Amino acid sequence: MAAPGAPAGRFISFEGIDGSGKSTQARRLVAALREAGHEVTHTREPGGAPGAEVIRELVLTGAQDRWSPETEILLFTAARRDHLERTIRPALAEGKLVICDRFADSTRVYQGLTRGDLTAKVDALHELMIGMEPDMTILLDADPATSLARGIQRGGELRFEGFGLEMQERARAGFLSLAAAAPERFRVIDAGRSEDEVAGDILDAAQAVL
Amino acid sequence: MAAPGAPAGRFISFEGIDGSGKSTQARRLVAALREAGHEVTHTREPGGAPGAEVIRELVLTGAQDRWSPETEILLFTAARRDHLERTIRPALAEGKLVICDRFADSTRVYQGLTRGDLTAKVDALHELMIGMEPDMTILLDADPATSLARGIQRGGELRFEGFGLEMQERARAGFLSLAAAAPERFRVIDAGRSEDEVAGDILDAAQAVL
Ligand SMILES: Nc1ncnc2c1ncn2[C@@H]1O[C@H](COP(=O)(O)OP(=O)(O)O)[C@@H](O)[C@H]1O
Ligand SMILES: Nc1ncnc2c1ncn2[C@@H]1O[C@H](COP(=O)(O)OP(=O)(O)O)[C@@H](O)[C@H]1O
Ligand SMILES: [Mg+2]
Ligand SMILES: [Mg+2]
Repeated sequence: MAAPGAPAGRFISFEGIDGSGKSTQARRLVAALREAGHEVTHTREPGGAPGAEVIRELVLTGAQDRWSPETEILLFTAARRDHLERTIRPALAEGKLVICDRFADSTRVYQGLTRGDLTAKVDALHELMIGMEPDMTILLDADPATSLARGIQRGGELRFEGFGLEMQERARAGFLSLAAAAPERFRVIDAGRSEDEVAGDILDAAQAVL
Repeated sequence: MAAPGAPAGRFISFEGIDGSGKSTQARRLVAALREAGHEVTHTREPGGAPGAEVIRELVLTGAQDRWSPETEILLFTAARRDHLERTIRPALAEGKLVICDRFADSTRVYQGLTRGDLTAKVDALHELMIGMEPDMTILLDADPATSLARGIQRGGELRFEGFGLEMQERARAGFLSLAAAAPERFRVIDAGRSEDEVAGDILDAAQAVL
């Protein structure tokens, strides 16, 4: 990530289906790393920068057919480009750790695999306009029914959660296939255990990039 | 544009620098064609569909550095995709004439040629997510200083107009070079004459696609 001579930050993303514990575990990892003296930027997608947060509103609110799948991937990519330029790259250039709740793999799964076959377009857009990957991606792998119940109990944004159990199952399979294709980047963590057990495994895994 | 057996509409775009008379002449052509009994959809970019109009607000308002050039071309392409799916293609499928005030050539010129060298990215995005051109593009070619004065006198959105005379000159050259590269699609009209003279030439040119 860094220019020659500049301090090199590290970029870790959290991925997984709704209710798998991404936000909970990202918060815990951020707290543990700060406790250990690291400078950490905690961010999330879609959003993570002022312009990107405005685009977040557009993609997460309104009717389910407000945007076609193709328009939606353009909006997600616009938000990601803004987030990358205004938040992620500046933090990495200062040598910080960036912990991000969802990143490009979520677009690959939700728009690419589960809403028609847009995989080729999603990949081409990423290559053209984003062109980078996290140093490590923590995939929280969890039972779709348990996760759906947790997500519903938690409440909050329902636009994608509204697609239900079949969607959760397809998304889980999609994340696992991305992980299988890029084993050097992914750490797959069994998220069907207690928060403390999951957090311990994540902190161990993160050592590899620190 | 049409599926086999379906009535084939026709799509005409107006291009040219700010103040060259696009909106004036698009209105006049729409009126003349309706007068002659044609069914006409009159639209404009950025915008032209409910979602695309929301994106228009994002790209035309706020500070000049609100979006990077790369984020901006993603937002313009998202708006264009929405406009194409929700307004232009349905109208063409019904056999209508679509008259559009600015289309992809404006992105090619303003984002591709005049704001850093983004031409390759603009072209790749168009190819990937839009993949079509108007049947005819009317390029209103006019003196940059005269057009700038007309545009300022008219008032209205100033975000791009604010770049001034040098921008107008570069944009004019950009439009002319696009026209030279696609002479079968473009009609270059001398817009430095009276409204009536310009309108007469445009109506003559439009006959070729009717
Ligand atoms: N390991 C766990 N065991 C039980 N409940 C959990 C666990 N991890 C998270 N939760 C709860 O499940 C819900 C969803 O977790 P959250 O972190 O918001 O998931 P995500 O961000 O992946 O959608 C929250 O109410 C959270 O407190
Ligand atoms: N041929 C012309 N001669 C003089 N003024 C014109 C002519 N065409 C347009 N105008 C005026 O110039 C201004 C800009 O025209 P407009 O159609 O809004 O340009 P554009 O849409 O290309 O920015 C308007 O005030 C319009 O009335
Ligand atoms: Mg979450
Ligand atoms: Mg106009």
